[in-house]
Parts: sequence; C-alpha cells; structure tokens
Amino acid sequence: MTDEIGAFVPGPRVRIEGRAGGPLSGLTFAAKDLFDVASVPTGGGNHDWPTGRPTPTQHAWAVQTLLDAGATLIGKTITDEVSLGILGENAFDGTPRNVAAPGRVPGGSSSGSAAAVAAGICDTALGTDTGGSVRVPASFCGLYGIRPTHGRIDVAGMMPQAPTSDTTGWFARDAETFAKVSSVMLGEAIPAALPGKLVIAVDAFGFADTDVAEALQPMVKRLAALVGASREEPMAPQGLSVWARAQRALQPAEAYNTFKGWLDTRNPRFAFSVARALVMGSLISESDRAWANLMRQEARARMRYLLPPDTILCLPTTPFPAPLVGQPLHVLEPLRDRITCLCAQGGLAGHPQVSLPGATVDGLPVGLSIIGARGSDASLVAVARALAGAR
Amino acid sequence: MTDEIGAFVPGPRVRIEGRAGGPLSGLTFAAKDLFDVASVPTGGGNHDWPTGRPTPTQHAWAVQTLLDAGATLIGKTITDEVSLGILGENAFDGTPRNVAAPGRVPGGSSSGSAAAVAAGICDTALGTDTGGSVRVPASFCGLYGIRPTHGRIDVAGMMPQAPTSDTTGWFARDAETFAKVSSVMLGEAIPAALPGKLVIAVDAFGFADTDVAEALQPMVKRLAALVGASREEPMAPQGLSVWARAQRALQPAEAYNTFKGWLDTRNPRFAFSVARALVMGSLISESDRAWANLMRQEARARMRYLLPPDTILCLPTTPFPAPLVGQPLHVLEPLRDRITCLCAQGGLAGHPQVSLPGATVDGLPVGLSIIGARGSDASLVAVARALAGAR
Repeated sequence: MTDEIGAFVPGPRVRIEGRAGGPLSGLTFAAKDLFDVASVPTGGGNHDWPTGRPTPTQHAWAVQTLLDAGATLIGKTITDEVSLGILGENAFDGTPRNVAAPGRVPGGSSSGSAAAVAAGICDTALGTDTGGSVRVPASFCGLYGIRPTHGRIDVAGMMPQAPTSDTTGWFARDAETFAKVSSVMLGEAIPAALPGKLVIAVDAFGFADTDVAEALQPMVKRLAALVGASREEPMAPQGLSVWARAQRALQPAEAYNTFKGWLDTRNPRFAFSVARALVMGSLISESDRAWANLMRQEARARMRYLLPPDTILCLPTTPFPAPLVGQPLHVLEPLRDRITCLCAQGGLAGHPQVSLPGATVDGLPVGLSIIGARGSDASLVAVARALAGAR
Repeated sequence: MTDEIGAFVPGPRVRIEGRAGGPLSGLTFAAKDLFDVASVPTGGGNHDWPTGRPTPTQHAWAVQTLLDAGATLIGKTITDEVSLGILGENAFDGTPRNVAAPGRVPGGSSSGSAAAVAAGICDTALGTDTGGSVRVPASFCGLYGIRPTHGRIDVAGMMPQAPTSDTTGWFARDAETFAKVSSVMLGEAIPAALPGKLVIAVDAFGFADTDVAEALQPMVKRLAALVGASREEPMAPQGLSVWARAQRALQPAEAYNTFKGWLDTRNPRFAFSVARALVMGSLISESDRAWANLMRQEARARMRYLLPPDTILCLPTTPFPAPLVGQPLHVLEPLRDRITCLCAQGGLAGHPQVSLPGATVDGLPVGLSIIGARGSDASLVAVARALAGAR
C-alpha cells in the first residue's frame, strides 16, 4: 500500500479484512485516526495523545459496522490535532494532498479520509464532523460526504471533541457507493421517494463568493427540478455570523472541557493555532455561553420550522473552494470564520447534511449541501443518488 | 562527552577551543541554546524555531567573549521553549536532571546550563534571565548565578524574548570561578572593597516558605557581619504580588510581540503551557499594560531609593526549593506565580542580582540573592567572593 498523498498516519499500515458476503464486500475503507481499531493506538492527530492511554481492545462502532458489512479497512488517516481544525494542515503529520485541487488544502479535520477517497486509495472513509469536519473536506475534495443527524450514529470508540456537536460521517466518490455505505451506517434502506419541497438558503448563497454561488446554480436548478416546488428563504434570519458566533462560543468551550484534564497532567504539544483554540475555549465567559445556548435553541427552532419532513434546504457547503496550502494564520483565520458561518447549523441544530460534488470554480471543487429534517438522513442520500442519476 | 543528565541539546555536541593564554584558559563552558554559535543552528528550545532561519555565521557576543578569554565551549544546553518557562521542563527535549536535588526540576529557562554546571560537566555556562531564568535555576541547583544590570551586557546573537527585560547571565559552582568569569563578562576587575550597608527585604523573607527563610538566616547573618550596617525594610511596599502582576502584564505581552510574526507564518508547535503564555500575552489589554508601565516606574524609583551605591539588599532567590519533576500544570502555575513575586524586580527595575548558594531545606538547595545599584554588578560579585571566603 503506497501513500503517495500522505493521507495515512505514519508507521505500519493497519489492514483488516471485511466479513465475507456482506453488502459492502469488495469495498475498502479508511478510518480517521479518531476511531479506535483494536490493538492499534488511537493517535488523535497529536503525538502526545496516545501517551499513557491503553491501546483499544475493540473496534469503534463505526469501524466494526463497516467490517461486519464486508468492507476492508486499509488504514488510519491523518486528522487535524484532536479534530480541532477545518483546513487539514497538521503540524506533526503534514498536510494530506488534495488530488482534486493540487496545491490546496484538503480541508479538515477529516483530512486524510477525504484525501484518500479523492485519490482513489479507498472507496469510502470514516470521518467525524463537529463543526464541519466532514462537510468541508467533502466540498474541497469534490466528494460526497455526510454529517448525520446528531445523536443518530453510535459514537462508541470515537474520540470526542465537543459531544453536543460531535458526529460520525463518511465520504465516497460516487453516489452509488455513498448510498450503499450510508444504508449500512444508517441501518435503513435508502428510499425511492424524494422530498417534495426545496428551500434555497438565500442568505448562504449571498454569503458565499459570487463565483461559488454561480457555479452551484446548475446543480440547484437540477435539484429544484428533481424535488418539485422550490422557494428562497434565509436559513438564519438572526444572521449566519450570529449562528457562527454561538457555535464558536459553545464548541471551543466544550472542547476545552473535554481535554482540560489531559492538558493539565500531560502539558501536550500542539501547533500554536490548536493550543490557542483551546485557550480561547477556556476563556469563554459564562454569559457568552448562556447566550450561545439561547441562540442554539433559536437555531433549532428555525431549522425545525424550515424543514418539515417533506422539505430539504440547499446551500453552498463552503463559501469558497480549498485555500492554498501553507498560508499564514492571519489569512486562514478569517477563512475559517467564514466557513463556520455556513457550517454552524450542524453543531447548533444537529440536522443531517450531505455535501454533493459536481461544481467547480476555476477547476477547484466546491460542494452543494442539502439539509433535511432530523432523522431524514436516508432521504438526503436518496436525493444525492437521484441527482447523480439525473445528471 | 557524555550527557548523563540530559543537559545538552540532542545531536552532535559542538566544541570550540578557547584562545590560548586567556584569563579563563583551562575552563570549560556551555551556552544555552539561545546563543548563536557560528555554523550551528540556534534551537531556542523549540523544534520549529530553526526552520527557515539562516544558520548563524558568527558567535553571539557572550560566546565570543568567553572564547576570547580562553574558555572552551563544550556544548549547547537545553532551554525552556523560546525561554518561556521558569521550571525547566521541556516537552521536546526533556528535563535536564538536577544533581543537587534529585527528582526535582532544575529550574528554567536556563535549565541545561545550570544542570551542566551543577553536575560538574563544565565550569561555567551562559544563560539568559528575563523573568528569573538564571536566578531560579541557580537557586534550585545550588549555584552562583548572576542577572546583570539590564542593558549592560551586549545581547548580540542572543535570541530575544522580552527585550526590555532580557539579560545575559552565567553560572558557576564556586565563588572564584564565578568571579573570574564575571570579571571577563563585565569587563572590569572585581573590586576588593565591599558595600557598607545591607537592606534585608522583610517582605520577601516573609513571603518565602518559613523553612526557606530560616535556612537562609545563617547566610544573612554572615552577610550582615561582612557588610556592616544592616536594616530591615520591605523591597516592594506596593506589594510583591503587585510587582509580579506588572511583570506578568509586560513580559508576556512583549514576548508575544517578539514572536507574533513567526507564530503567524509558521504556526509552530509548543507545549500547551508555552502556547498559552503567548496567547495570554496577546490578550493583555492596553490599560493593563499602561498600568504595568506605571508600576514599573514605581519599582524603578523604589529600587533606586533603596539602593544607593554603597548599599545592597538581600532576599530569598526563590520562595521554595526545586519542585518535583512532572507535576500537573494546576500545581506548577501557582508555584510559578510565587516565584515571579520574588523575581519581578529584575524585569521591572533591571538592577543586578546575584544568587548565592549555601543553604538547604531538607537537603534541597535554595539561594540567597543580593541586589545592588544599577551598574554595581562587580561589587555584588565581590560580596559573593568575600562571603565564600568568610565561611
């Protein structure tokens, strides 16, 4: 097994054959190094994370589920440190190469998983999505990627970051594979019936770069034709930036809480940006968190109102295609903040979201996202499959 | 050359013979890895610091001065990352062993220099002292150590941290070697005459652990006998903690300013505690800094008033002996803050300070410091030599 794109964690590559005769037999997958694989230390993207921790004795639920369904595990992939990062540049293990956008970041934190699928090294790969960590690399690498309904997928054996936002997701290059894997992971068939109404999130399209919004228009049109009725409405009447602000109060504070015992006893090494995110999380005031929780309730109410069972919403997954590799922090941070404006619903409201490939700007992929009611994950996958077929 | 105590930076050990026939011929020295040595990358205690920097083409002033005086350089020593740390635990290169206090930290940031001299690996060693980085390891390792008058010693080729507080210092095990090296570094003879008055800093003795204050009493008595007239007075009537607060506003803010370009472009890796210090430095408000600068003026006025040319002041160098290695941050941080209360004069007022060995608590060394008027460095060294002779 070569790793010409630097997607896999350093060291010997783990390989575990899938169960014979399962629905995913013949497929290969990789797992972000946040998922436990029995007898393999979980790296968490940080060289000090495994120190002093017992090596897992069983597979994470998601790994076991794919193995039981017949898929073969071919390796563990690089992640942003402790899943804190949205661009996919890891100061310890390097930046997995994005074959869909050479010289650009793969997106993170599920960087290696997305890069490996994009490069054709495996058919699917497990990621996690707390604040956009599946959706963003899916958009940047031109892949299908899902952030399921929060709380739906068992996170046993998955390293936590901010549990009220953490989810397990996965990637695929084509809609059929995506549907097959999704059916196994969701534990239900992908339905034939499609939703009947489409909301076009005008605030999100307006917030994205103009060329991104334009590039996505043909997909939006095909989606509208597929679904039937469509209308334009803002997703976040309080402001996408206001939702992002709430997300950026809740998630880092919760992440700090997750890691603070480890920080205290091990004083681990981090890239400056990652340590800073944790420090800033430790400094968020009670009043900011209280406000953010109220805004989270508003976001949940808004998404519930917008998305009755028969309705989906579409928006650009990211406001721009993948940024260049190796840019300074003062360039990357405003980009990260803009990404959060489009991704905040996931962490705040927990609705399922699928990023669809199919558009490019100057040859660089950018994804169109569809979001449905909580629990409608399979229906979103059905839309993805139908849209691919209707191309 | 062995390095059984882990005091030297990893890799091949640099060795440069001193000039024959100089006043320090026959002596060996080590240089903290903040000092440039020609043709050797300066590590700065952080594995990402050398990246992209040109290898020095000439020696730092302090290194050149010791070589010219005949001392032989035998290696570069471990430092806390970018000299930010007072305990001497480096997450990248490990903690140099303190042979004077086994199982205890050596103190930092000039950890390897102090540990190497304490272990007898070299006769003297260069350190830097911004907030206590020579004085504290001198106290913890039972050595002579000097923080010279701020601005007196040329810092060319010495990696900066907070320039308005940074100084070049050095260590020795015995008073004669200390005097010889000091004479060369200060560029003046060590005088025979001693100061005539001693101020005993009652606030500092009261602030130290009781057993430390008691253990230092015999040295204070000998010092008083040596000097003549002595009186008790507080060093910091505004509060040692208030001086420390000013120091901890000015120094981290200045350190952040020193490193911010590097942080931005390289996103370097740090131990969490070091990154946090830089982040906290970036967050200090203008009003806090403005207040701290006023308090610095008050501290300077106080020290000038207390220390006319004929007077020295004594205080415990550290409030306690070396803490145990490997303690969690929530234990170490209050210790660091207490140390700063006794060390803040150096950074704020810039008076020369010499830490003298000779006392122990439960077998662990603790230093007595003497401080004099600005420029009286050689006179403090004279006191150190006389006190050793009077033992």
